[in-house]
Amino acid sequence: MKRSDVLVVGGSAAGLTAAITARRHYPDKSITVIRKEQRVVVPCGIPYIFGTLGSPDKNLIPDAIHDKNKLDLVIAEATELDREKKVLQTSDGEFNYERLIIATGSHPAMPPVPGFDLEGVCAIVKDVAYLSDLQKRIGAAKKVVIIGGGFIGIEFADEINKLEGKQVHVIELLPHCLALAYDEEFCTAMEEVIRARGVDLITGVKVDRVLGEGKVSGVALGDGRKLDADLVILGIGAVANVDLAKRAGLRIGLTGGITVDRAMKTSDDAIFACGDCAEKISFFGGRPSPLKLASIASQEARIAGANLYGLRRESPGTVGAWSTAVGDTAIATAGLTEEMARKHGYDTVAVEIGGVNRHPGGMPGAVDTKLKAVFERKSGVLLGGQVMGDQTVGELVNAISACVQTRMRADDIAMFAISTHPALTASPIAYHLVNAAETAIGKM
Amino acid sequence: MKRSDVLVVGGSAAGLTAAITARRHYPDKSITVIRKEQRVVVPCGIPYIFGTLGSPDKNLIPDAIHDKNKLDLVIAEATELDREKKVLQTSDGEFNYERLIIATGSHPAMPPVPGFDLEGVCAIVKDVAYLSDLQKRIGAAKKVVIIGGGFIGIEFADEINKLEGKQVHVIELLPHCLALAYDEEFCTAMEEVIRARGVDLITGVKVDRVLGEGKVSGVALGDGRKLDADLVILGIGAVANVDLAKRAGLRIGLTGGITVDRAMKTSDDAIFACGDCAEKISFFGGRPSPLKLASIASQEARIAGANLYGLRRESPGTVGAWSTAVGDTAIATAGLTEEMARKHGYDTVAVEIGGVNRHPGGMPGAVDTKLKAVFERKSGVLLGGQVMGDQTVGELVNAISACVQTRMRADDIAMFAISTHPALTASPIAYHLVNAAETAIGKM
Repeated sequence: MKRSDVLVVGGSAAGLTAAITARRHYPDKSITVIRKEQRVVVPCGIPYIFGTLGSPDKNLIPDAIHDKNKLDLVIAEATELDREKKVLQTSDGEFNYERLIIATGSHPAMPPVPGFDLEGVCAIVKDVAYLSDLQKRIGAAKKVVIIGGGFIGIEFADEINKLEGKQVHVIELLPHCLALAYDEEFCTAMEEVIRARGVDLITGVKVDRVLGEGKVSGVALGDGRKLDADLVILGIGAVANVDLAKRAGLRIGLTGGITVDRAMKTSDDAIFACGDCAEKISFFGGRPSPLKLASIASQEARIAGANLYGLRRESPGTVGAWSTAVGDTAIATAGLTEEMARKHGYDTVAVEIGGVNRHPGGMPGAVDTKLKAVFERKSGVLLGGQVMGDQTVGELVNAISACVQTRMRADDIAMFAISTHPALTASPIAYHLVNAAETAIGKM
Repeated sequence: MKRSDVLVVGGSAAGLTAAITARRHYPDKSITVIRKEQRVVVPCGIPYIFGTLGSPDKNLIPDAIHDKNKLDLVIAEATELDREKKVLQTSDGEFNYERLIIATGSHPAMPPVPGFDLEGVCAIVKDVAYLSDLQKRIGAAKKVVIIGGGFIGIEFADEINKLEGKQVHVIELLPHCLALAYDEEFCTAMEEVIRARGVDLITGVKVDRVLGEGKVSGVALGDGRKLDADLVILGIGAVANVDLAKRAGLRIGLTGGITVDRAMKTSDDAIFACGDCAEKISFFGGRPSPLKLASIASQEARIAGANLYGLRRESPGTVGAWSTAVGDTAIATAGLTEEMARKHGYDTVAVEIGGVNRHPGGMPGAVDTKLKAVFERKSGVLLGGQVMGDQTVGELVNAISACVQTRMRADDIAMFAISTHPALTASPIAYHLVNAAETAIGKM
């Protein structure tokens, strides 16, 4: 029986960040990361393996981080958990722990659609060997159908479309791609960008079945259309990996994740959970949130890792901040869209501001940037912001996210101390976020 | 006698923003902007006229903004102010007002150094004709000496250096360029970037005199060196334009600006001031701040404009957030540097974090990014952050600025809901700002 004061199951964004955080907060504890993968892929980088990066080998989380943070690394599968004895069974023997962090991640959703079991229908599994195989399949394919027009679907579509001689279709059930993350006008704008690059987007249509005998040959849509396909890629969501936790009797939440409190503690005082396997609570209203993102995983991991031997931090809930890019166009969101805010029951004031992101407008790199901010009418609190423009929106949305998490009011944001520069940002007179706040005040 | 409910003197970042804000908050008031310039240059864009933009005509604030916001525009010089009668005398007649906003800006500092009066010694005056003339002088010059290695000096140097056949020297009195805005390690790193582009930086040396008979021929330095020069450009600071206010008996502050309270109201209840002409109070500790930036001017203008007919907003003070770029390298700061914080008397914990700004590191555009965060030890509150990297630091610093203004503690920032993406930001595990907070906590 081996032992480690702190045992972390899972070595991706959540597990690794939790272990690093535990090391920072508890320098004298022994900390072991147990993971089943020989090598760990950067989860968000997966779509970029196939075009931009060129190989799964170029999309790995470097293992040197473990040594640097004095973390023991064991490559093994966790099989059973005896909570009473505080013992984790693994394919490499038993481990005794004082504190356990479960960061087992998620696996691709696989609804019972006819034909999803055919050869040539691939989900996105976070495994180097699987992704190497998928890369070969993509290389050989001419007609690729991607089912699901969320971030992963869009990113895969654009990367595969960059390769020679591919015809790429994306099928999205909702009226728009990215519709779970952005308001309609942003979805439409991004759809235009993607279509202009040659990807065929088919929205508001369901997949009836995948066609083929043994191997995929096409996709039958709900509207009667049939698309030829020699490869089908599924990007339709993820399901929390909770088997180990469930068998050990830990409580499971409404969205299927391991139930945790604000400290990221499970129903067992010695066990924490974080990342895709953990149930999330929304920052807005406190109801369960289905979001699964590496950035959320890291955030939760920093809470779990800090609280192992005493309460040091409590999660404010999941804000939901994310971004993507297609070519030179990036889109990003933090907090609630207008549509989401309405569904939450908020009385909102939403404002959209356009204009270039440099000043004067003739500065190199200036592109039109669109920002939408959603405020709660009565309090003036910023509930969320969406922004579309160049690469800089990837950080601009973090300024928005800061305002959201600190519950800044429109009036506070109107007095925001902005840093502006001709070559880097919009002008101080026309800075989108501040002007959105000013405009919203007039409508409250 | 003409009359306007609201009269704004000055039409640049402060005056224009104040007028727009007044329009938003008081839709029924008549608002007149009085300015002496036929056309208004974008103040921060001035250095870029000479290389990137190519002409002062490409660096103008568009006058269409006045119509769009129903602002009357009068091109005239304000000459006298009779506060008792609420009458402003101008070169275009008298104007009666209910509320007056003074936004008269600043003019270049001109210390009594011998030779500063020679032909060919030019300050940076915000005037189209002056700048057109300066452009001709720069075109004809071969050896340019820039006195002052702050933002303006650096930006002028790099832009002039881009032109064919120029030799450019910058003389800075302090040990480093940009030393009033960044800690030494950032100054040094930026100096390397500038030197690698061919600009000669001479630091820690004072200018004894400018040489020449009638026309400039060189610059004599305090260390005995002499530099040949056919053009000398001064970038050594700015002085508030307060003549009108002073003659009218308004109170003047310690740094020479018009004294204002948190509402941006002067010692006269009907008169507000904002921008470079107004005295500033630091967000940190409340003492006078010498900063003069267009972004601060706009912020103050949004406060002044909103408060004209009733207190709606109070200034939290001047945070100080600014950025610049040389080639592909940008540098930005918000709040206090470690050095400034020490001078303010804070007991600080400062942390510097390096690492690439994309993930994995092989993503296109990935460059090493350096972020330094300064925390107050006891409270954990973020006092400031500096960052150097690519263009995206121009907005990343606004996320930092948001954390500073909302007085987020290191522990709050460790739980920051970040948006991350392979093509846009650092990884969620290694996100600089969050890791700086985590690292700082271990040192508190």
